[in-house]
Amino acid sequence: SGEIVLRRGWLIKPWHIAALASLGFRSLRVVRRPRVAILSSGGELVEPGERLAPGKVYNCTKPMIWAMLASYGAEPIDLGTVPDDVDIISERVSDGLAISDAVIVTGGTSVGERDLVPEAVSRIGEIVVHGLAIRPGKPMGFAMASGKPIFMLSGLPVAALIGFQELVIPALEHMLGCKFDPPPRISGRLTRRVASPPGIRTYIRVRVFKGADGEVLIEPLRVTGSGILSTLTRGNGLLIIPEELEGLDEGSEVEVILLSPIFEGDET
Amino acid sequence: SGEIVLRRGWLIKPWHIAALASLGFRSLRVVRRPRVAILSSGGELVEPGERLAPGKVYNCTKPMIWAMLASYGAEPIDLGTVPDDVDIISERVSDGLAISDAVIVTGGTSVGERDLVPEAVSRIGEIVVHGLAIRPGKPMGFAMASGKPIFMLSGLPVAALIGFQELVIPALEHMLGCKFDPPPRISGRLTRRVASPPGIRTYIRVRVFKGADGEVLIEPLRVTGSGILSTLTRGNGLLIIPEELEGLDEGSEVEVILLSPIFEGDET
Repeated sequence: SGEIVLRRGWLIKPWHIAALASLGFRSLRVVRRPRVAILSSGGELVEPGERLAPGKVYNCTKPMIWAMLASYGAEPIDLGTVPDDVDIISERVSDGLAISDAVIVTGGTSVGERDLVPEAVSRIGEIVVHGLAIRPGKPMGFAMASGKPIFMLSGLPVAALIGFQELVIPALEHMLGCKFDPPPRISGRLTRRVASPPGIRTYIRVRVFKGADGEVLIEPLRVTGSGILSTLTRGNGLLIIPEELEGLDEGSEVEVILLSPIFEGDET
Repeated sequence: SGEIVLRRGWLIKPWHIAALASLGFRSLRVVRRPRVAILSSGGELVEPGERLAPGKVYNCTKPMIWAMLASYGAEPIDLGTVPDDVDIISERVSDGLAISDAVIVTGGTSVGERDLVPEAVSRIGEIVVHGLAIRPGKPMGFAMASGKPIFMLSGLPVAALIGFQELVIPALEHMLGCKFDPPPRISGRLTRRVASPPGIRTYIRVRVFKGADGEVLIEPLRVTGSGILSTLTRGNGLLIIPEELEGLDEGSEVEVILLSPIFEGDET
């Protein structure tokens, strides 16, 4: 009857498959998965499962980025791990560009006196952004080389997660020509005041749980030391404080991005 | 430091992988995917891609159920299509139970004078529920045989989708020992009144879009004729009217389950 069933750029859902099948379609031309290569930089990195020598840390950011890419329909490619050396980083990123649609480099975006990755990447392409008004994640950014994006993400998993959401997801949407579903959100009451610097979009990891009376409570997690482990596993939500605010008061009604289902009562 | 990183029953997210990798874990014992067999019943069904003879329709519900099972971590198994014959249905469901953890039968739950599937299933196991106070989807239900569930879903895709959400998803959560993420929800203003019978949980397919002033509007779709195609593809949301209400007024602020991203302006 001349009705449009699916438009270019729609993410195909099970009910779209039903609609197509009801018309007799067995197959459909779809967009190729973007291939995204991941390079870890940092002389301190050791692969999980290997022996951990003093001064070394496990590379935990790459498996997270890998899982995130796969969950958004991309095909991850491992470019390995390189030491803190501009020549080697630059060469490996070039290799990655040749076999992929985009490259993600983690770590080395601000290593004391020299930003190794931006320096290495600027030899190959043009830095578009370096330095984001977000926290955590300020030193991240991206470049373009031969029409392909090179993302410079933090080596720290929490910052890398936020950089992925701010930079990589919009790029994947652009490459796939579609919009992903918005993440689930939930509203609740803040259990204590949180501060945030003005002019910076601040991501606060939170624990979302049901209080005794069934009310949804949002507890900002305190980040002590590296704080990575506990906030990635005790936390189940992200509170984004916009640039124009300087924190939120205890008791405020806020909306958070829910990363995992809410906890019941005192369950951690 | 004795801190708990992951609990049994958590769905593993990318940041959990980061937390485990930071401790040096390369692998993890996880629950096996539930195997769910799908049987289509109905002499009128033809597979998409085949020639459609008069009086026949394409089987569009099976590919939808298949995609939904896969998206919730189950492993779908195709038990084929059987005619409207109690002996054959019963035999095929038994075969399916032997090779899977659960069976879904679609169609034949209320075929004029005889409910063929409930009759066939009652020979094998115990009917737990037949007849739900929901619309669409009233004649659906489930049975138990040797500790395994047998779901009786509608052959019509929209009703089957709702039956899947009401019956199959909670069972998958039970089998996997986890809770899935809640679906994304959005609030908006209803563009016209919708009626619903009291005592029945009513699912209304809606079109969620942004009005001229950026306001989120919820337009209940009119279902004419079979109405399947247009509401599965023009619609991008589900409005659930609870049992205790008799419809909702035009202009009401309502929350809907978002099936696909909201439409911008007049885009369909």
